[in-house]
Amino acid sequence: MNIQEYMQSLGKDARAASRHIARATTNDKNAALLAIYRALEANQAQVLAANAQDMANGQASGLEAALLDRLELTPSRFAGMLEGLQQIIALTDPVGAITDLAYRPSGIQVGKMRVPLGVIGIIYESRPNVTLEAAALCLKSGNATILRGGSEAIHSNQAIATCIQQGLIAANLPATAVQVVSTTDRAAVGELITMPDYVDVIVPRGGKSLIERVSKEARVPVIKHLDGNCHVFIDREANISKAVIIALNAKTHRYGVCNAMETLLVDAPIAEEALPQLAALYRDKGVELRGCIRTATMLDCALATEQDWYEEYLAPVLAIKIVSGLDEAIEHINQYGSHHTDCIVTENYTKARRFLAEVDSSSVMVNASTRFADGFEYGLGAEIGISTDKIHARGPVGLEGLTSQKWVVLGDGHIRG
Amino acid sequence: MNIQEYMQSLGKDARAASRHIARATTNDKNAALLAIYRALEANQAQVLAANAQDMANGQASGLEAALLDRLELTPSRFAGMLEGLQQIIALTDPVGAITDLAYRPSGIQVGKMRVPLGVIGIIYESRPNVTLEAAALCLKSGNATILRGGSEAIHSNQAIATCIQQGLIAANLPATAVQVVSTTDRAAVGELITMPDYVDVIVPRGGKSLIERVSKEARVPVIKHLDGNCHVFIDREANISKAVIIALNAKTHRYGVCNAMETLLVDAPIAEEALPQLAALYRDKGVELRGCIRTATMLDCALATEQDWYEEYLAPVLAIKIVSGLDEAIEHINQYGSHHTDCIVTENYTKARRFLAEVDSSSVMVNASTRFADGFEYGLGAEIGISTDKIHARGPVGLEGLTSQKWVVLGDGHIRG
Repeated sequence: MNIQEYMQSLGKDARAASRHIARATTNDKNAALLAIYRALEANQAQVLAANAQDMANGQASGLEAALLDRLELTPSRFAGMLEGLQQIIALTDPVGAITDLAYRPSGIQVGKMRVPLGVIGIIYESRPNVTLEAAALCLKSGNATILRGGSEAIHSNQAIATCIQQGLIAANLPATAVQVVSTTDRAAVGELITMPDYVDVIVPRGGKSLIERVSKEARVPVIKHLDGNCHVFIDREANISKAVIIALNAKTHRYGVCNAMETLLVDAPIAEEALPQLAALYRDKGVELRGCIRTATMLDCALATEQDWYEEYLAPVLAIKIVSGLDEAIEHINQYGSHHTDCIVTENYTKARRFLAEVDSSSVMVNASTRFADGFEYGLGAEIGISTDKIHARGPVGLEGLTSQKWVVLGDGHIRG
Repeated sequence: MNIQEYMQSLGKDARAASRHIARATTNDKNAALLAIYRALEANQAQVLAANAQDMANGQASGLEAALLDRLELTPSRFAGMLEGLQQIIALTDPVGAITDLAYRPSGIQVGKMRVPLGVIGIIYESRPNVTLEAAALCLKSGNATILRGGSEAIHSNQAIATCIQQGLIAANLPATAVQVVSTTDRAAVGELITMPDYVDVIVPRGGKSLIERVSKEARVPVIKHLDGNCHVFIDREANISKAVIIALNAKTHRYGVCNAMETLLVDAPIAEEALPQLAALYRDKGVELRGCIRTATMLDCALATEQDWYEEYLAPVLAIKIVSGLDEAIEHINQYGSHHTDCIVTENYTKARRFLAEVDSSSVMVNASTRFADGFEYGLGAEIGISTDKIHARGPVGLEGLTSQKWVVLGDGHIRG
């Protein structure tokens, strides 16, 4: 069997399994998730041994430290995975919910029913915990999944997949509801994203180059997450002490995350009051500052280039610009930002309202740290990713983002005249 | 300027206009729609003259009768266009609605705000009324539009576009909020569907080959409508008189529409009672019947081939299959159908409930004609199309389908700990 035939056979099996899993009850799905939990508990030693093999191979082939760190499954990370699984079991099942059922003038009742998408393909890098989390979210939302993780994690992923399949079988659900691609051939990705008959949506989780490749070549819809170039704008009517703690938290709480602030915009009239104290706090934390000409003069920092305004540093670096007011701030964010998460700090009602309406980002905030843009903080329980698309799901994507709605029509012999 | 440069310039202008139109108030947008109405009224003679030119060109080049009919704008069709525009003015503006705003444990309030998609590209055939309807729906939902109609309608479309632009200018909205591609070069379509920086979604309206081409080549999301292979299943517990009127209406109310029934499934125990009377009614209407072996024997009609079960006839032809019960009906529909609209006729509660849950179609119905699958009948007011996709919008797509939701977070100096 060549790669194409292999992927097509996974696709066919996934499509068939998706019909079963779509009509499984919440109890059936939770029973399967619990059985997976138990299988993982019972096979912890095997999973960690498989991971140790991946780690040894990674070290031997000179995988860089950051990637080795993501690849590693320690006993405490393993426990964290199981805890995440328990949280998914506790989530409300979105499938089957009927909303907006109302009578129409013709006498029919029309409403919407939430239904699974079908088959979801997940493409991710060498983080074995994603295998379990993605499989569990798709299963809970009634979808079949084909998982294609990074080749460096192949043994870990296969070991986790074995447990998942034990759980599915124990709960009388088709084992093919979750399939982990067993080849490390990169051609498998090309096949997975071009099988519209078998795959309804692709969720790439990983670096920008992976996502760009998938978006470019996919023949099925993609729920994608590109850059997080997030802004905080401190308005002249901000409460400066709120502004300082928000701007500090948004930049320094964690550096390598997509909802960290990358550019700080400061309204000119309060720049002299706000910026020096913020600069001192950033410098205490070792954050490198790059400012517009006025900022650079005021703070004696490096001068930002045009490119800096576009940059998602994911690092202790911050671009700072002094702007002439709300209009320039909104314009800057819509032009240079990545439409991810942006915040205004202000006490002014009208400016808050305008910022919320006019900033074209998946999360818009007033007086809160950009770090809140997160499925857990938003009450989704867990997220499969953060979408920077506008179609379908925008921002953090939880169980509901893995479903769609179909129309339900109830009549009593009604016909169209 | 070559085609690529021309389309890029339309795209850039549309992107800029989309920012204005996204924050226009409902009153602003309605004022523009009303001004367009008045401009069309004032310029009816010019629009009809332009259409007469297209008709003459079409006749000279041997355009087939059905296409000429779609192309033609009579005074009564023109009046119908204006009436449709009035209905769109009367629709509720979806933009800005905030839902589900609730406190999270952290103290922030999180909700969703409905926002325009941005720039929508519409590709359609030579039906000038689509130019106005699509432009009006996009404008009302706060989106900029680039319209690319069939080349045979170029003069009609330009004349309508002139009125639209007069209306936009009269209402102080950017004229570039609605742009009609002025070249008939087919390369314009290829450019329009591959400008992700300037176009957020493509809506192709037209025949299958157009939609397949767009889906295959697009680099931006597509809201597409493929086949409507719709079914009615008459269950053994159906009220036969309801079943007969529904099955007759679903097939014969109109033949060339996507929500017409194409295959009738009849439960074996009531086939002898239901089928002969239905067959007589269909034959009265001149409907050609193609049956499974049992049906063909019972009704003395032609034998359906395997291909018939896949067919969207759009014609007075009906495939009929006798099935062994609900399970076979659901399986047949999910396998051969196009996931558009399917109906069960039954008095049995549990079977109705199972059909609604298990048939994987954009509209599922109990005891109602498939002909109801329509934006107007569903209360959407007007539809830009009927989506057979699962992502984003499914089934009839109205104003809401041309919008998305962003997250809104309200805090009071909240930071993540």
